[in-house]
Amino acid sequence: MPGPIEFWFEFASPYGYFAASRIDKLAEKHRRPVGWHPFLLGVVFKATGGQPLTGIPMKGAYSRRDMERTAGFLGVPFKLPEPFPFLSVAPARAFYWLTDNEPGRAKALALAVYHAIFGEGRVIDKPEQVADIAAGIGIDRSALLAGMAEPKVKDRLRAETERAIAQGIFGSPFVIADGEPFWGHDRFDQLDRWLDTGGW
Amino acid sequence: MPGPIEFWFEFASPYGYFAASRIDKLAEKHRRPVGWHPFLLGVVFKATGGQPLTGIPMKGAYSRRDMERTAGFLGVPFKLPEPFPFLSVAPARAFYWLTDNEPGRAKALALAVYHAIFGEGRVIDKPEQVADIAAGIGIDRSALLAGMAEPKVKDRLRAETERAIAQGIFGSPFVIADGEPFWGHDRFDQLDRWLDTGGW
Repeated sequence: MPGPIEFWFEFASPYGYFAASRIDKLAEKHRRPVGWHPFLLGVVFKATGGQPLTGIPMKGAYSRRDMERTAGFLGVPFKLPEPFPFLSVAPARAFYWLTDNEPGRAKALALAVYHAIFGEGRVIDKPEQVADIAAGIGIDRSALLAGMAEPKVKDRLRAETERAIAQGIFGSPFVIADGEPFWGHDRFDQLDRWLDTGGW
Repeated sequence: MPGPIEFWFEFASPYGYFAASRIDKLAEKHRRPVGWHPFLLGVVFKATGGQPLTGIPMKGAYSRRDMERTAGFLGVPFKLPEPFPFLSVAPARAFYWLTDNEPGRAKALALAVYHAIFGEGRVIDKPEQVADIAAGIGIDRSALLAGMAEPKVKDRLRAETERAIAQGIFGSPFVIADGEPFWGHDRFDQLDRWLDTGGW
């Protein structure tokens, strides 16, 4: 049986949000599971010298327009939160705590958090905000809050981010399928054909 | 009658090459003319702090793989010249001299130069190399060489590059259609729909 498609994303990444809205449908088409892996892009940027898109001269202004247009193209709601970007430690920790404790709900939380951030334009960077969103989809609020504070969960997020860097992941979203790396939701056309043909 | 699609590109840009291989077909579908505009991306990078893709940590290694894979996806030959990138002043000047003197041949030269650079993996940075390619498609070699040295042509390339920056162009390829900017050949899907619908 073919292995999972590894989907790496930063919660404060608009293109990660676009990819998250499409990855399951793409994977289903090829009967492949998806491994969801949030990581901290800011930590990656420290290693690579990368910087947040929206602050780059000229490219920043274009990127805001491109995000709006891409959302319309894909038919998903979009509102860029301000300030942007922001630290996404809280939702990423919540995700990994759920992965170890209620694995069936980690993806649902990721989608709900992404919807709050980029569908509604809300800065979600506090544990309480994440816990509120989690409660809205039936997750125990206080168990999650306690879980997010566990040293084990903090270490896990740190380790996953290091694992991303070790695999050459420098941006969000980033998909690795059968060892082949695809950066950006705009490589989903190539990823789709790659999963069909096994390469070219 | 709808105006032209403005296609901006750097000759030493692999993604510019991919876009050049597709722009005419896309424009024909929408019965739109294409204005071809080479510019010097290195000059733009001085204004924006951008840097050549292949030299960026992690992203550079990925980009080489992505170029190869994208070429295969599109079905065009590809070989990255070394050293890369290189100064593309010579082909860009030749293009603008032709634009003013044999306008029907400027695009043919651009395509032939792109083929030599990325189809065959040749560094084309000397006027004589450009003139050889031009001669191969029936352009007068010595007239072109003399033309490339004209101060008027040098000024023209400088002015076009400044015009690119003034329009917010920070990368290659870059298309502007009815005032809407599209960066990257991977926005051709959005460009295609935009030309159909006039936006969304």
